[in-house]
Amino acid sequence: MSAADCVFCRIVAGEIACLKVFEDADTLAFLDIGPLAEGHTLVIPRQHYERIEQMPPDLLGRIMSPIPRLVRAVMAATGTDACNVLANTGAAAGQVVMHVHIHIIPRRSGDGLGYRWPAGKYPPGRGEEVARQIVLAL
Amino acid sequence: MSAADCVFCRIVAGEIACLKVFEDADTLAFLDIGPLAEGHTLVIPRQHYERIEQMPPDLLGRIMSPIPRLVRAVMAATGTDACNVLANTGAAAGQVVMHVHIHIIPRRSGDGLGYRWPAGKYPPGRGEEVARQIVLAL
Repeated sequence: MSAADCVFCRIVAGEIACLKVFEDADTLAFLDIGPLAEGHTLVIPRQHYERIEQMPPDLLGRIMSPIPRLVRAVMAATGTDACNVLANTGAAAGQVVMHVHIHIIPRRSGDGLGYRWPAGKYPPGRGEEVARQIVLAL
Repeated sequence: MSAADCVFCRIVAGEIACLKVFEDADTLAFLDIGPLAEGHTLVIPRQHYERIEQMPPDLLGRIMSPIPRLVRAVMAATGTDACNVLANTGAAAGQVVMHVHIHIIPRRSGDGLGYRWPAGKYPPGRGEEVARQIVLAL
């Protein structure tokens, strides 16, 4: 399954070049051409799925399996000891290319990257209600 | 395997309460008590691993397998159509609790959340060299 107008499907097909770092039967990993830091790597399924929540669970599991090894290699190659592993799903979450991709972003203290973290708190009873709604939706 | 002083191991053991939304043999998912948005959910392995890159690949795959269903349920319950799926590994990447956890953060346009994204560019030849170093480290 592929989408003719999808840049990542064209990379999988070899029609667009990439700086490949890893591949297996299900997965391709290559450098992001607009890196947030040197070594910023994308891990994608060869098959076209727009969004992570549309993927068959076992396929998502298989494309995540190389992540520990890739994270170790990205950190070793960049001399870092921290990483963010991130998937954006949907435009409001920052997804730009509509083919599932997992970012591996190597991190250093004070690099100015990272997720914005204005942690809040549930009013009494509200967390219980939100949890109940999620369970009902599962 | 568990760590006596780990708050997530104590949640797995039932010694600390949580707002649970899902569990299976390998995985527990519950609401973050310091949510970035209503429905902010954490997915953790029952077994104690400090960092994602220390996990056995197949176990990481198994704890990721419920993510599509959980993302759909979190979005349905919160009336959103976007999410960030995020693991911070290492203090410099924002990891606070040293037990692997995957954040599911529901997103809305204009919510002020998300990852900082000052995308850069490799000078000529540098991307090739970085990719080569990652491949050597794999």
